Amino acid sequence: MLVVVALNPALDVTHHVHGVDWNGVNRPSAVRATPGGKGLNVARTLHALGADVRLVGLAGGPTGATLREGLRAWGVQAELTQIAGTTRRTFAVVDSLRETAALFNEPGPDITRDEYNRFRAAYVDALADCTAVVLSGSLPSGLPPSTYADLTMLAAEAGGVPTLLDTSGAALLHGATARPAMVKPNLAELAAAVGSDFRGLESGGDTATLVAAAASLRERGPGAVVISLGADGLLAVTGEGTWLARPQPVAGNPTGAGDATVAGLAHGVVLGRPWAERLRHAAALGAAAAAAHAAGEFCRSDYDQALAAVSVTSLEVG
Amino acid sequence: MLVVVALNPALDVTHHVHGVDWNGVNRPSAVRATPGGKGLNVARTLHALGADVRLVGLAGGPTGATLREGLRAWGVQAELTQIAGTTRRTFAVVDSLRETAALFNEPGPDITRDEYNRFRAAYVDALADCTAVVLSGSLPSGLPPSTYADLTMLAAEAGGVPTLLDTSGAALLHGATARPAMVKPNLAELAAAVGSDFRGLESGGDTATLVAAAASLRERGPGAVVISLGADGLLAVTGEGTWLARPQPVAGNPTGAGDATVAGLAHGVVLGRPWAERLRHAAALGAAAAAAHAAGEFCRSDYDQALAAVSVTSLEVG
Repeated sequence: MLVVVALNPALDVTHHVHGVDWNGVNRPSAVRATPGGKGLNVARTLHALGADVRLVGLAGGPTGATLREGLRAWGVQAELTQIAGTTRRTFAVVDSLRETAALFNEPGPDITRDEYNRFRAAYVDALADCTAVVLSGSLPSGLPPSTYADLTMLAAEAGGVPTLLDTSGAALLHGATARPAMVKPNLAELAAAVGSDFRGLESGGDTATLVAAAASLRERGPGAVVISLGADGLLAVTGEGTWLARPQPVAGNPTGAGDATVAGLAHGVVLGRPWAERLRHAAALGAAAAAAHAAGEFCRSDYDQALAAVSVTSLEVG
Repeated sequence: MLVVVALNPALDVTHHVHGVDWNGVNRPSAVRATPGGKGLNVARTLHALGADVRLVGLAGGPTGATLREGLRAWGVQAELTQIAGTTRRTFAVVDSLRETAALFNEPGPDITRDEYNRFRAAYVDALADCTAVVLSGSLPSGLPPSTYADLTMLAAEAGGVPTLLDTSGAALLHGATARPAMVKPNLAELAAAVGSDFRGLESGGDTATLVAAAASLRERGPGAVVISLGADGLLAVTGEGTWLARPQPVAGNPTGAGDATVAGLAHGVVLGRPWAERLRHAAALGAAAAAAHAAGEFCRSDYDQALAAVSVTSLEVG
C-alpha cells in the first residue's frame, strides 16, 4: 500500500466567469467545489492508476466534511484526523473571455500539538502495511518545519519505507536532511533551497547548472533529486545516474501536473521500475495532467500517447 | 413575533487582498465566512434591535450546516428546512489597495416541490404566533415567481398578518398582486417593475416622477410602496400620505443598507409607529448599516446619531 500524507488539504472552489467585472457583481456560469491540495491530487491520480493508496492527514469544520464526502465519492481510502480548526478553501476565478485565472489561497487552520500527535499515531499505524510514502504540500500553521523530517524518520524506522517529499522552503530543507528516497522541487523551489537563480532549459538555461544544483541539494540527504521543469519535463540526479525525461509539448494547464508527476514517481517506486522507466511514466502523467481540465484528473488516452512520446536521455556528468 | 423568510440564503465568503493579481496567486490577509443573503441580514438586524424574530427558510449541504451554526452563534432563532441541494456561496474579493470589490454570486440549489411544501408547513406553523412577515431576496431555482404571492396570501389567511416584500423582477410583480402591506424596491427594481427608467434625486431626477411610478406599482396591490434611494433615503407612497425621509450623507458601503432599511420598516410595523416615525427609524438604520463593516451589522451610536439627523417631509401630491 502507498500512503499519501495531506497535512493542509483544501476545498478547491472554482468559478467560471466570462468577462469578470473586478469592481462589480458577477454571476459565475459554472461552479465547482472539489477536494484539493497537493496530497489529495497525488492520491487521486494514484487511485486512478489502480494503485492501492491510503490518504492520511488533517481535516476539520464544514469544509473538512465536504472533503471527506468527496473522497468517499471518488472511492479514495482516507483517514483524516479531525481538527478543531476549519480546512482551508482555495478560490479560483477563471475568466474564459480574457483567458486569465486568479487564485485566492486561504491561510488554513492552526494545528495543535495534540492534533498532530493523533495524526502521527494514525500515520504510524498506516506504515505497518506500506511500501512507500508520499509527503506532499505546505505545512499548516502550528507545525514546525521539521515535521516532514519526523515523518520521514518514522517511515525509515518502520522497516525502511521509502518516502517521496514534495514541498518547499524550510519544510524542504529540514525534510531533506532526514534522507527521504526522493525530493521533487520545481525550479523556483530548487533555487530557494540552494540559494541561487536558474533559467529553464527553454529559456536558455543549461543542464549542467541544473545538475550541479540538484547534486548540491542531494548532498544534504535525499537519495535522489528530481527537478520538475514544467513543459521541459524532469531532470533526475540519483545514486544510479542522471537522466533527462522530455515529453512532447502540451498546450494546457500546468496546475496539478507536478502532483501527477509525483504520483507517477511513487507508482514507479512501488512497481520496482528502473529510473528511466519511472521517469518516462512520471513525465507522461505530468503531460496528461496538464492536458486535463482539473487538478488530480487525467485522461488515459492522453497518458498512453504521452508515454510513447517521452524521450529519456542518460546524461554523462563529468 | 416577526417572521423573516430566507428561501435562498448564502454563505458569504470575503477575502481581503491588498493589490489583487487577477492572473496569479493571491494570499488573502483576512478571510471571513458569515451567514448572509438578504433575509439573514434582515433577521440579524431585527435581532440586534431586540425584536423577537424567527428566521424560516431553506438550507442544505455543508454550507447550510455552516449557516445554521453561525445563526446559533448569533442567537438568532432559525428553523431552516433541510434541502437535498447545497446552500450557495457568495465570494467577495475586496482590494484595499485599489478600493474595489468584486462579488461572485453562485446560482444556488434547485428546490423541489416537496422541499417547498415542507418549508411551507413550517411557515404556516410560525404564522400562528406572528405580527408581521418579511419576505426578502431572490427566489431559488425551482420555485415559481408566484411563490411570494403564495406566502403573502397564507399570512393574510392567518388572521391578516401583514407582509413586507423586498425582491425584484417577476417575483416582485407576482408578489405585489397578492396585496402585501409594503414592497420596497430600489430605483432599478422599480424601473424594471413599471417599465421605465429613472434618475436618483441627486442625479437630477425629480420627486414627482418617482411618486408617480411608485403609485403605479401600488395600484397593482401593495398597501404601500417604499423606494430605497441609497444615500438619498426613502420615498414612501402609502394610503395615508407620501413622505420623503432623507438621512445625513454617509460615506460607506451600501451593501446591506437596504436590508437594514427593511428591518427598520418591519420593526416600525410591529411597534405600531406612524409612517413618519417608521421611515425615520428605517432611514437611520440604513445609514448606520452603510457605515458598518459587514452586511447585517450596525453600530448603535451610528444609529442614534443618524436618527437625530434624518429629515422627514410630507409631500403634497397633486
